[in-house]
Amino acid sequence: MKFNIAQPDQALKPQLIHTINNKTKPLGALGQLETIALQIGLIQQTLTPELNRPTMLVFAGDHGIAESGVSPYPQAVTAQMVLNFLRGGAAINVFAKQNNMQLCVIDSGVNHQFEPNADLIDAKIGMGTRNFLYEPAMTLPHCEQAIEKGVQIVDKQIAAGCNVLGFGEMGIGNTSSASCLMSVLCDLPIEACVGRGTGLSDTGLAEKKRTLAQAIKRHRLTSTDAMQALSTFGGFEIAMMVGAMLHAAQKQCTLLIDGFITTAALLVAARLEPNILDYCVFTHCSDESGHKVMLDFVHVQPLLNIDLRLGEGTGAALAYPLVLASVNFLNEMASFESAAVSQKLAV
Amino acid sequence: MKFNIAQPDQALKPQLIHTINNKTKPLGALGQLETIALQIGLIQQTLTPELNRPTMLVFAGDHGIAESGVSPYPQAVTAQMVLNFLRGGAAINVFAKQNNMQLCVIDSGVNHQFEPNADLIDAKIGMGTRNFLYEPAMTLPHCEQAIEKGVQIVDKQIAAGCNVLGFGEMGIGNTSSASCLMSVLCDLPIEACVGRGTGLSDTGLAEKKRTLAQAIKRHRLTSTDAMQALSTFGGFEIAMMVGAMLHAAQKQCTLLIDGFITTAALLVAARLEPNILDYCVFTHCSDESGHKVMLDFVHVQPLLNIDLRLGEGTGAALAYPLVLASVNFLNEMASFESAAVSQKLAV
Repeated sequence: MKFNIAQPDQALKPQLIHTINNKTKPLGALGQLETIALQIGLIQQTLTPELNRPTMLVFAGDHGIAESGVSPYPQAVTAQMVLNFLRGGAAINVFAKQNNMQLCVIDSGVNHQFEPNADLIDAKIGMGTRNFLYEPAMTLPHCEQAIEKGVQIVDKQIAAGCNVLGFGEMGIGNTSSASCLMSVLCDLPIEACVGRGTGLSDTGLAEKKRTLAQAIKRHRLTSTDAMQALSTFGGFEIAMMVGAMLHAAQKQCTLLIDGFITTAALLVAARLEPNILDYCVFTHCSDESGHKVMLDFVHVQPLLNIDLRLGEGTGAALAYPLVLASVNFLNEMASFESAAVSQKLAV
Repeated sequence: MKFNIAQPDQALKPQLIHTINNKTKPLGALGQLETIALQIGLIQQTLTPELNRPTMLVFAGDHGIAESGVSPYPQAVTAQMVLNFLRGGAAINVFAKQNNMQLCVIDSGVNHQFEPNADLIDAKIGMGTRNFLYEPAMTLPHCEQAIEKGVQIVDKQIAAGCNVLGFGEMGIGNTSSASCLMSVLCDLPIEACVGRGTGLSDTGLAEKKRTLAQAIKRHRLTSTDAMQALSTFGGFEIAMMVGAMLHAAQKQCTLLIDGFITTAALLVAARLEPNILDYCVFTHCSDESGHKVMLDFVHVQPLLNIDLRLGEGTGAALAYPLVLASVNFLNEMASFESAAVSQKLAV
């Protein structure tokens, strides 16, 4: 797979800033919304950007490492939650529906054979990954296959008219994958990258740290080995997200990045194509310890900070109205001139 | 005016917590949304709360202190912005429309005689307040009249079916009012309560601090003089908000508190009726220095922290989808039992 993501042309920047500054509000008074309005204007190369057919992609996959006691939930929960998504009972269903986002659920590699279902995208690479405590989670060809499937999934969404994509995931054990990816790609000791996931006890957390330290020690990867890190530690859902993200940015979509695992996928993507960051809105800072460190690593400030740690893309879906508001104020607010409002004096 | 705000009955609390904890998500994984779901369940005394006819009240008024150079904008901007609200060109129009909130604009005391307009609620107490640098901003009877008007405005909204109200304001000079109220009610030196408002320069800020220090020194009020502080420093829009807030809480509405000036009004209301805090959702922490101190003073954690400092109720309108999401997950998510998802193991 070859990707080629260019930085958005910056020529429009002065005009966008002028437009934002002339809206009927004090200079800078819409804070982060102004930053996002500028960003999306540049992504779409227009003073009047639009967010069309907002879509949340939720990638699900199982992880061999789950057998090593890194999660307080049994592996079966991945498939059970996918069925919950299909029946509309999960948090992401509620939030996507509320905020008028399409929801696509993708079987990237769940350890369960689902009945055919029009609402489930079958992109299964395997029945879950291998246990990376003993061997790489997937082969390099499988990893590339997952990336390619991610590209195809995004292509279909773009063909349907979508230009803004949220990324979410489900997979028991995948905070362990994400922690190992973070440790390698941010060049940090694994202990700084491991958190409680879905709710480990102190004992469980200590054990998870010991287990993942062993895995890191076994594979001895460095931060330049992005693809190898992904195939060694990644889940199928994480690899598929990497492909989906890279392609979405290449096609000038706006990317809504969710929590710890989604950001780990982005770290891989950004190592391959650093300009992808210009297309990303970081929707929240998760309560999972490590996420803030990741966000600091890529020097970004997320929109929400409300102690979410659910995954599924819920943070991205919850923050979407703020992203929409950024575009809406740019398009719909009056200017000082058009509204005949007096400008600031020099005080 | 007599108000009597009771703490919501807490008997339902264990059942609400049980319902929240049995949704298909890790315990506590929805963070602040869970706190709000519990709060609104208690306000409405039900396991299935509803937010009906969400309404944003924007109170506008002029301030005598504006003549003393405390704002970089001329007083005329208050009336100009009211006209902008009526034409749909302001930020609050865009955000209220996006998030399906009714918008009510109230002339509490703007220094301008508006043409009759069905979309403008005429509750004018006067053509702006007096300059509190030299004399109290309003008389006590005027202050009580403003509070009473606030009650009537909320009564009409409740009669129309509304049970969730956002509070916002417009008034050149009103960060000065709010700073003085904060200084008195939080018992803090005025210098700790003054910020740049709509964007003062360093020189302007220093001058604003000197001016307000003089005003504070002249009136010598203490933190128990809530009504006197309100009539001395308050704008008509702030006094009207106080009445509206007190009545809304008394009628078991959910209150969406916006930024610095709205929170100053709430400080007055909470001094009169401390239980009002149980009915308030603090929607954001403003970039106006002092707002965070106010929020800490009432021991609350706001939803958004995205450097807004616009007023008009914009923070409340922008955060409303998060409040709605809190109610929606409580009503719509499946439980572990109903979705046949395995519960957490002891790890």
